[in-house]
Amino acid sequence: MKVLITAGGTSEKIDDVRSITNHSTGRLGCFLAEEFLKNQITVDYVTTTQAKHPTENQQLNLYEIAGRQDLADQLQELLQKFSYDAVIHSMAVSDFAPSQSYSQEAFLEAINQLFQEKNGPLDKDDLASLSLGEKTNENKISSNTDQLYLVLQKTPKVIQQIKKIQAETLLIGFKLLVDVSKQTLLTTAKQSLATSQADYILANDLAKIKNNQHPGYLINKDGEIVGEEQNKEGIAQLIAQTVMKHHR
Amino acid sequence: MKVLITAGGTSEKIDDVRSITNHSTGRLGCFLAEEFLKNQITVDYVTTTQAKHPTENQQLNLYEIAGRQDLADQLQELLQKFSYDAVIHSMAVSDFAPSQSYSQEAFLEAINQLFQEKNGPLDKDDLASLSLGEKTNENKISSNTDQLYLVLQKTPKVIQQIKKIQAETLLIGFKLLVDVSKQTLLTTAKQSLATSQADYILANDLAKIKNNQHPGYLINKDGEIVGEEQNKEGIAQLIAQTVMKHHR
Repeated sequence: MKVLITAGGTSEKIDDVRSITNHSTGRLGCFLAEEFLKNQITVDYVTTTQAKHPTENQQLNLYEIAGRQDLADQLQELLQKFSYDAVIHSMAVSDFAPSQSYSQEAFLEAINQLFQEKNGPLDKDDLASLSLGEKTNENKISSNTDQLYLVLQKTPKVIQQIKKIQAETLLIGFKLLVDVSKQTLLTTAKQSLATSQADYILANDLAKIKNNQHPGYLINKDGEIVGEEQNKEGIAQLIAQTVMKHHR
Repeated sequence: MKVLITAGGTSEKIDDVRSITNHSTGRLGCFLAEEFLKNQITVDYVTTTQAKHPTENQQLNLYEIAGRQDLADQLQELLQKFSYDAVIHSMAVSDFAPSQSYSQEAFLEAINQLFQEKNGPLDKDDLASLSLGEKTNENKISSNTDQLYLVLQKTPKVIQQIKKIQAETLLIGFKLLVDVSKQTLLTTAKQSLATSQADYILANDLAKIKNNQHPGYLINKDGEIVGEEQNKEGIAQLIAQTVMKHHR
């Protein structure tokens, strides 16, 4: 039996010295890896340099990535090469990638020009050109301006490529919201079941994650809560047991 | 004898799950700490959780910070409490802090309104209002938009507060540029001597830092190159020796 786990948070480069980083300690991913490893299940583990790594193990294969595209490439390679009984995608992945940056001066020039050409209120198509220009070739954005404008472009969800390559794998996704009601959390998680083609979603709320507490709900394809845990170890056990139950 | 070292890179929160991070491994800072510690000099060391930490030592005091404001507060506290023979500020600090974020829809609305009110080309004062609004109270920016606009506001340089509190300390600053000529690097470093009131600036170029290579020039108050090194260990030794020479 063989599973693929992603953990940690991706970083998207703004320039050579700055990135936008999604925070994730990678601790839950480590607990997940341990649960499978102690059941003699091989774990392919995709994470970042910054995230906590699981303890070395003969049945553990580590793959390090940095950004969203790295992750997409690495997953494609692994999914085409190996067959996984389950994929547990706990990594926090950037939804947006920096596509253009402007000093205050350059930004003023760009939008004033847009308004002059349009001679009326701008719409989405007009704005699109702000990010379509050539990516600033400055290696380090000069700090010689009072304001900086960053335009970020939405990126395709990495989780959506998983079932396209391995339709038969058991896919467990994660949905993290911040300080919402339980109902909003569960409704949003159910929506992401469909778009991600996941078999299960672990729904959790950052505002409730502190110290040793990490409440989480595991939701199945029908939108039913099949388990509820209060900390990372519990969530890891719940997911591992659910995966192993399917394999039997 | 007692020195204060800053090392690593700061992070500025965009929302509860995303930050803009300045990259710095903290390895040079560790070499610096070791150089002083092996000469029985007490080191107060300000760094981040992510950066590499020096090996524990009785004469080493660690202080962890996250963002630019944290760093400014921590330095103020230390500089008011202790007298330092030297401050070596190698930390990569954000020049900009996220002040506002907009979905594509909200951004369109905001700038169309600005143009309607002004009825002509916008100037810097008009743009200022884009970042003056209340900071988005969304805890996690929704990914339900095609583009994201981040407005970042320039922040005061932390290094400038050091001599204001301890005028008599020996201050060593760092200037990092990316892929510039040696002349541009040295000219820019000389300019920052004046604005930071540093006694020395270590000028380096990210494009030339790879594997074990890390070329750096140490420039004194008169803008003269007093030393040139090719790797982190060499730079750490050069700076430590320069500091100790002043103390004799």
